[in-house]
Amino acid sequence: MANLKPSIPKGTRDFSPEVVAKRNFIFDTMRAVFTKFGFQPIETPAMENLETLTGKYGDEGDQLIFKILNSGDFLAKADPEKLQAGDSRRLTPEIAEKALRYDLTVPFARYVVMHQHEITFPFKRFQIQPVWRADRPQKGRYREFYQCDADIVGSESLLNEAEFILIYDEVLSRLGLKEFTIRVNNRKILSGIAELTGKPDKMMDLTIAIDKLDKIGIGGVEKELLQRGFEEADLDKIKPFLNLGGTNPEKIRHLKESLASSETGLKGIEELETVFTYLSRFNTNRAVVELDITLARGLNYYTGAILEVRSDEVKMGSIGGGGRYDDLTGMFGMNGLTGVGISFGADRIYDVMEELKLFPPRTTLGTTLLITNFDRETEMFALDLLQTLRHHHVAVELYPSPVKLQKQFKYADARNIPYVLVIGPEELQSGQLTLKHMKSGEQEKITAEALPSVFSAPSS
Amino acid sequence: MANLKPSIPKGTRDFSPEVVAKRNFIFDTMRAVFTKFGFQPIETPAMENLETLTGKYGDEGDQLIFKILNSGDFLAKADPEKLQAGDSRRLTPEIAEKALRYDLTVPFARYVVMHQHEITFPFKRFQIQPVWRADRPQKGRYREFYQCDADIVGSESLLNEAEFILIYDEVLSRLGLKEFTIRVNNRKILSGIAELTGKPDKMMDLTIAIDKLDKIGIGGVEKELLQRGFEEADLDKIKPFLNLGGTNPEKIRHLKESLASSETGLKGIEELETVFTYLSRFNTNRAVVELDITLARGLNYYTGAILEVRSDEVKMGSIGGGGRYDDLTGMFGMNGLTGVGISFGADRIYDVMEELKLFPPRTTLGTTLLITNFDRETEMFALDLLQTLRHHHVAVELYPSPVKLQKQFKYADARNIPYVLVIGPEELQSGQLTLKHMKSGEQEKITAEALPSVFSAPSS
Repeated sequence: MANLKPSIPKGTRDFSPEVVAKRNFIFDTMRAVFTKFGFQPIETPAMENLETLTGKYGDEGDQLIFKILNSGDFLAKADPEKLQAGDSRRLTPEIAEKALRYDLTVPFARYVVMHQHEITFPFKRFQIQPVWRADRPQKGRYREFYQCDADIVGSESLLNEAEFILIYDEVLSRLGLKEFTIRVNNRKILSGIAELTGKPDKMMDLTIAIDKLDKIGIGGVEKELLQRGFEEADLDKIKPFLNLGGTNPEKIRHLKESLASSETGLKGIEELETVFTYLSRFNTNRAVVELDITLARGLNYYTGAILEVRSDEVKMGSIGGGGRYDDLTGMFGMNGLTGVGISFGADRIYDVMEELKLFPPRTTLGTTLLITNFDRETEMFALDLLQTLRHHHVAVELYPSPVKLQKQFKYADARNIPYVLVIGPEELQSGQLTLKHMKSGEQEKITAEALPSVFSAPSS
Repeated sequence: MANLKPSIPKGTRDFSPEVVAKRNFIFDTMRAVFTKFGFQPIETPAMENLETLTGKYGDEGDQLIFKILNSGDFLAKADPEKLQAGDSRRLTPEIAEKALRYDLTVPFARYVVMHQHEITFPFKRFQIQPVWRADRPQKGRYREFYQCDADIVGSESLLNEAEFILIYDEVLSRLGLKEFTIRVNNRKILSGIAELTGKPDKMMDLTIAIDKLDKIGIGGVEKELLQRGFEEADLDKIKPFLNLGGTNPEKIRHLKESLASSETGLKGIEELETVFTYLSRFNTNRAVVELDITLARGLNYYTGAILEVRSDEVKMGSIGGGGRYDDLTGMFGMNGLTGVGISFGADRIYDVMEELKLFPPRTTLGTTLLITNFDRETEMFALDLLQTLRHHHVAVELYPSPVKLQKQFKYADARNIPYVLVIGPEELQSGQLTLKHMKSGEQEKITAEALPSVFSAPSS
């Protein structure tokens, strides 16, 4: 066995205890809110059949799917002609039947179709699992990362859209974010605008161009629109929408006028109004909800509401997004299943929380108290105390061997353990144990009997 | 896009909401106990470099590692000669640089070496993550399954062994198991027995043969020992150990006599005695701890204590096991790091709990209350109530559309939602809402104001 210097594949990460604790704080908060709103967790395998995934993410996406080499003598089952040709792409399905999931949406669609007879619709599910993409790794982009999705399928009700806005509001407020905006739009409004130019079939071109507004500015969008087959005269019709200002009701009033000739456009506005009516009955915690006609989102399967969330305190891309789709499961032969879903960007939320110092200090801690180990006699005494404290649900450790006290304190310090209890021969004889608060350095004398009551209540 | 009938790779599983909830009950219990005992969570990537894994699990294991096909034109970088030869095994490292982790031990060793300068030893970590093996799938054996490992590295103290026994005891007791046995042995005792036959180098042969005692009986073990180079005279020396009876102290007394001539054997007995002395200071909850000289465990890296847990209520293989090793990280060039670790068999524990009906009924539930949706007017009233109840941390849903009440009740029934609140025009006018307890069928009238206090306390 060679002594290799170990490393991990590029774009992947080890998570240390502190980071795991912080990530779990985010995931646990999402789980709690999803559950409170009636969502149920499912989990799907890391591997899917390659044919389940192929063709769902476009040509570029297909290239970014990680394929799993067939076990055993995979070459024996491969088509010799394709093998000879040396064409990696054509050979792939011959030697790799399985692949790692690329997102949670396609596995969810596959799950719904496979389990349709066990599922009660409307089906409200959430799923928090890693996905894998062979993207070029760069800052903030990884080859393994978690997606956190929630969807409601089998219900056209726009109450669902409102509920998702409340979920964003509650999750992010609980995590400590104070200023964030949930931008809302509706694909039918974008269709209405395309109709207005007399080019209803160019809705996706319009969407893709507007989607880049943040990056390339209004001048860039105009250029892109011209490249995508719109004319100068169309721009005059489109531009007022991109500059639409005012409050949400003002925007809606405006849109009703400008899109009066488009049935689809009016439908989109009506849907948005219904969502806002629902929201008017609720009080959001921290979220600002803003109708933003320039919100486009590139994914082409959205057909109604679209949502996107950004922090207003930290400059960072979107930390969540979603929308309504009309046909989740058509790709697997089950047509016409409508749904709406959202996703949280866990890695970005993590970065926002780090920057704003929002993680509660206790999330990084485990053990509350370390009992020092002096010798065999004091150790035996400490064992009783250890058991008693654990019965009181205190996270407590006894240092496993009688090394120098200094080393034991160093351990407590490195582990962020807030209290150390010293039990030496003196303490054993007097019954007065020494309790040290690591941060302040203060020491006090305390009896073994008094300890459980000190630590049973959450300590600071 | 073809309409394919979707399926998942053999040996993998979808987990429905009910199963996820039950599995999380197990994982959360482990996490809580690990944390209370001072262990910290880490996570490692699903993918490791193939060379990190190769050679660590024997030839057979190497074949069972799932390899990930390189992205892009993988054939271009492959050695043409190996490609021409059509030898799958030799070609694999040319076209697959990464692989899915096969267990949590090797990634943990890799983690310790890579992060050795950030880690404070003794390092107490736990890790609950899936692993993948290209095993032939069969009942209870999957190609994707979770491992739940805890280890303490960098400490020789036998207190650690005792702590792991307490962890088994507490986790399994909390899960509701009432009768289970933790069997304990020490590899040095097996070495001592091999020394007694004059064949100290045959310790692993002895171990492998004894490990099969459960399956092939004492006659089978004798046959296997003869095949592995022991002689009839050796069997006479070995057999008394296999039949060793009595209490733990009686066994220890016996072993001290029989192994008096073996220094290694005596060391093993002394280690066991120390562990039992520690345990005598604690009270286990439910676990019976038994010294069992026939406990061998096949893995060849154990050098001290070995442990195995079985339920005494359900016939099932081991539900946990572990032991002490002297050299976790030598394979990555960091020598002499001792440690001890255990593992829980989550799938088997799940099966035991199902068979004994140990899952609390609430683990399968999410939503406590469904509010029915009658029409737009009652819906608006319901929205206020929805928000109020959620402020009181009640998991509550409003049915998203005004379909027939019967369908809404059917939804509540299928989802196991225990209470349904009916708000129709009558209820709206009188202020007396109808609350139905789904299981008993009982109905009562209740005001909106009284509802939060009913549901804020955990309902049955």
